[in-house]
Amino acid sequence: MGVDPLREIEDPSDLRRLPREALPGVAAALREELVSVGAEVGGHFAGSLGAVELTVGLHWVFDTPRDRIVWDVGHQTYGHKALTGRREGLRRIKRADGPSGFLRRVESPHDVFGAGHAGTSISAALGLAEAARRLGEPRRVVAVIGDGGATAGMAFEALNHAGHLGSDVRVVWNDNGMAIAPNVGGLARTGDVAGLVRALGLAYRGPVDGHDLSALVPALQQLRDASGPSLLHVRTRKGCGYPPAEADPFGWHATGPFEVAGGTRGGGAGAPSWTVAFADALARIADRDPRVVAITAAMPDGTGLDRFARRHPKRVYDVGIAEQHGVTFAAGLAAEGLRPVCAIYSTFLQRAFDQIVHDVALQDLPVTFALDRAGLVGGDGPTHHGVFDLAYLRAIPGLVVAAPRDENELQHLLATAVDCGRPFALRFPRGAAPGAALDPEPKPLPLGRGERLRAGSDAAIVALGKAVDVAREAADRLACRGISVAVVDARYAKPLDHELLWDVAEASRLVVTVEDHVRAGGFGSAVLECLEPRRRNLRVRCLGIGDRFVDHGDAAEQWRAEGMDVDAVVRSVEEGLG
Amino acid sequence: MGVDPLREIEDPSDLRRLPREALPGVAAALREELVSVGAEVGGHFAGSLGAVELTVGLHWVFDTPRDRIVWDVGHQTYGHKALTGRREGLRRIKRADGPSGFLRRVESPHDVFGAGHAGTSISAALGLAEAARRLGEPRRVVAVIGDGGATAGMAFEALNHAGHLGSDVRVVWNDNGMAIAPNVGGLARTGDVAGLVRALGLAYRGPVDGHDLSALVPALQQLRDASGPSLLHVRTRKGCGYPPAEADPFGWHATGPFEVAGGTRGGGAGAPSWTVAFADALARIADRDPRVVAITAAMPDGTGLDRFARRHPKRVYDVGIAEQHGVTFAAGLAAEGLRPVCAIYSTFLQRAFDQIVHDVALQDLPVTFALDRAGLVGGDGPTHHGVFDLAYLRAIPGLVVAAPRDENELQHLLATAVDCGRPFALRFPRGAAPGAALDPEPKPLPLGRGERLRAGSDAAIVALGKAVDVAREAADRLACRGISVAVVDARYAKPLDHELLWDVAEASRLVVTVEDHVRAGGFGSAVLECLEPRRRNLRVRCLGIGDRFVDHGDAAEQWRAEGMDVDAVVRSVEEGLG
Repeated sequence: MGVDPLREIEDPSDLRRLPREALPGVAAALREELVSVGAEVGGHFAGSLGAVELTVGLHWVFDTPRDRIVWDVGHQTYGHKALTGRREGLRRIKRADGPSGFLRRVESPHDVFGAGHAGTSISAALGLAEAARRLGEPRRVVAVIGDGGATAGMAFEALNHAGHLGSDVRVVWNDNGMAIAPNVGGLARTGDVAGLVRALGLAYRGPVDGHDLSALVPALQQLRDASGPSLLHVRTRKGCGYPPAEADPFGWHATGPFEVAGGTRGGGAGAPSWTVAFADALARIADRDPRVVAITAAMPDGTGLDRFARRHPKRVYDVGIAEQHGVTFAAGLAAEGLRPVCAIYSTFLQRAFDQIVHDVALQDLPVTFALDRAGLVGGDGPTHHGVFDLAYLRAIPGLVVAAPRDENELQHLLATAVDCGRPFALRFPRGAAPGAALDPEPKPLPLGRGERLRAGSDAAIVALGKAVDVAREAADRLACRGISVAVVDARYAKPLDHELLWDVAEASRLVVTVEDHVRAGGFGSAVLECLEPRRRNLRVRCLGIGDRFVDHGDAAEQWRAEGMDVDAVVRSVEEGLG
Repeated sequence: MGVDPLREIEDPSDLRRLPREALPGVAAALREELVSVGAEVGGHFAGSLGAVELTVGLHWVFDTPRDRIVWDVGHQTYGHKALTGRREGLRRIKRADGPSGFLRRVESPHDVFGAGHAGTSISAALGLAEAARRLGEPRRVVAVIGDGGATAGMAFEALNHAGHLGSDVRVVWNDNGMAIAPNVGGLARTGDVAGLVRALGLAYRGPVDGHDLSALVPALQQLRDASGPSLLHVRTRKGCGYPPAEADPFGWHATGPFEVAGGTRGGGAGAPSWTVAFADALARIADRDPRVVAITAAMPDGTGLDRFARRHPKRVYDVGIAEQHGVTFAAGLAAEGLRPVCAIYSTFLQRAFDQIVHDVALQDLPVTFALDRAGLVGGDGPTHHGVFDLAYLRAIPGLVVAAPRDENELQHLLATAVDCGRPFALRFPRGAAPGAALDPEPKPLPLGRGERLRAGSDAAIVALGKAVDVAREAADRLACRGISVAVVDARYAKPLDHELLWDVAEASRLVVTVEDHVRAGGFGSAVLECLEPRRRNLRVRCLGIGDRFVDHGDAAEQWRAEGMDVDAVVRSVEEGLG
């Protein structure tokens, strides 16, 4: 290819000026660009490669952004970003100075509806289509959803509503047989997308080869010209065009930088992650307790359950991107005496809030929730921060809510959760764990008891989870300045260790709380509630995330900006005392 | 019918001792009993009438409770209760001294999985079935779900997972064409349950007439003897056997007491409800603002949107029991400039928590949430109390959260919500509104401003929503005892009126908060957060619901038991000052 055809495409309107014969060349160049970007900075990779022709075809056939393309999740939209003026930015993707790894309305008029969680696109598109009808706008609206994303119940709800309304809404069903991991579900077994779609009252077209633009473009044109709710079934290969990713699309769903030739990747050296610590602790607990089974909502890798499954292959359920079902399914298992552990990211467990209340906690069933990626997650940004869980969970009667400060506390808290026979949520953050030495066996800890890690007479810092290390470092630094500060690892956000907190509060004039969570209704708020009845001459300062969605960027920088880092804790103690 | 055959049935095992020929007689007697109970005490009526033969057939064919019947929602289970030892109790249903109106594990070994929200039964049944397989128990598990309940996405998630696992789980699809109101959805249009079910990998049987025991019993026996995931499609008529209910199954979904002959009902005299006040206010706002559309998740009656639709028939969407989709659909409408109002009970909006965060608030879209039945709801009990919304909503950045003290404030807050262009949640309780006079026009109020209703120098009571009246009455009573108490209607839980609260706090030694919500993370907790930075010599006492699920019973009694009534507020002020 002599000239780079992407250079001429600032905007999809430039693409649409090209003849149809030029599209394969554009697709090839786009694929090359995505491989080059992936090799340089990593990111969500295999999904975008599989959607290259689809992306080119959609922007060529539809009059974007006047016509609305609603992408699901965003894992497959690097090509879309490149064709909509963000090609250069892709090399800074997920950095504070670069574009989001997902879709954001504020980023581009081409991101007509934001995403980051799966399964929302058909609902949003139906809303856009109904609005267009009401407003008399002749625009077309297309949702692009993967077969993985479509395991989410809300996608079914949306298809069913579309079939009811009869609106002119279009759906492209991007069927690559995968969620992040190979897709699950009866539908994935039968492959009868047509049967499902027709039963719900939509017109079905396809399947069409999503890498053959000579078939895909006419199919998209037919979809464009259809009226009523219509679905086009497109078959693609995740990772298409980059042989290592085609051979292992699961492994290449997301990647760090790599060498293009051969696909050699840096590998995950460095400190073990919280995820691995969780998986290994769960495996040890399951070794001795046959009641333990584990549940993932289509994220066996992200949650560490693939690692757990190496030791206990018959004790993992992948329910699909179906957090609601997963939680109630777990409640059913627990009702018969098993001890299910739902390993779901904090942000995705939001999907199952009602099921936690109605099916688990109200029935006091022993389900453990392992909330990975709790707190600020850095580059994945606001769709993925797990910063509401303490608020939404601690309101639920009887639920235990805990967070470990290191891997050793993690294994003991997980044993506590499985042993205690109560609904139990355990949150831990993204990334590297501190590297604590492990006791030989996970052992249950007393429920609702925190730990005073150091004594102090001037003030006390009460922290939870990852924030405990911040508290310790702040106390060290304050000690050098002659300020004596106690440090408490609360361990539980609920039930709080009232005795310990009262002890600490009575011994000092100032309590500072630190948490990796929004302040509204969070851990600090729980400490305020706890101390209120008995406090005298006490000040309390609560550090945590303010009332805003935190953008993507570096996690340490996010902690600093939100006033939760060591400097902020030191400052808060000094100001509180001064 | 000479002898009452129900008298001999203490338990389903007694039923199973009867010959098959006796079942129609049992069904007739059961129906007569349900009509008699309904006439005497009201309750969920038409659904249970439609499930009489199904209930008799299931308990005769399956070895309950060793075999597990998992009923969805519970609206159809009065017959099940009567056959499982709770016949006499039905006359006290929903009262504190009677059985729940729904299903509760603690109430009977026959309630193998609790319910109250729709769509959970297949998930739970799949969990029970997998547990049986793991434990080597030969029991059978049957979920009984209505076609209305099956519009919930989690039911689809569960069917899809069942088709994947291939477990021996059985589903009875009780198809009466209704949710509470006539059912919606493309599937309801096509009627192709077989196509849907087979696409998801389950065996389909039926349809069978669910009122003809000679056809139903053999079909249930075949279902019992099936292996792998199987679904039996049963057609029933909601209200069957009681002509007024058959003629108007929507109107007779739930009822108060009535006269059996002719079906004359007492009618809803008395004070207008919050629901009516909401519907009328919304209609007035929609008169002048063409952007307003309304969304219900299968509850046009309960939310008042049927009333709204009389004035604006083309501006209501019933999305089915699909709160997740409904909220994201609303976000799509809002993204194009409309002003959707989602009218969803507080407890059911829990289903859409993630969509509020991810699709509405993160994108700062102007969707209004009208949360009816917020707070303690009385007879419907713990599955239906709306007592977590302040906690789960106020954690969400940028969301406005408000609650009116009367109908007039309701209309103004609703106008504020629609006008302000921000995500906005408005909660109001079940039942009769105070009967306040209405200003001629709904007018937007300033955002985040409360109202000082009376001045006072000794203490201040800060209350939200329905609790404001409690606060005023308590202040009156305290005034008689020489204690001068300010009363503040906070109006907003978020953003709080910091200035007003600080003013009030500086003027008094004691602040008492009152709310119709759990204390953990609720309104009082928000007040604590607000006052903390500037407080001096101040005590704060937060009244609200403790860390427990509140049983069904009388709402006023629930307020008393939770320490939120006038007596409790008076006591709290006196103790706090003393």
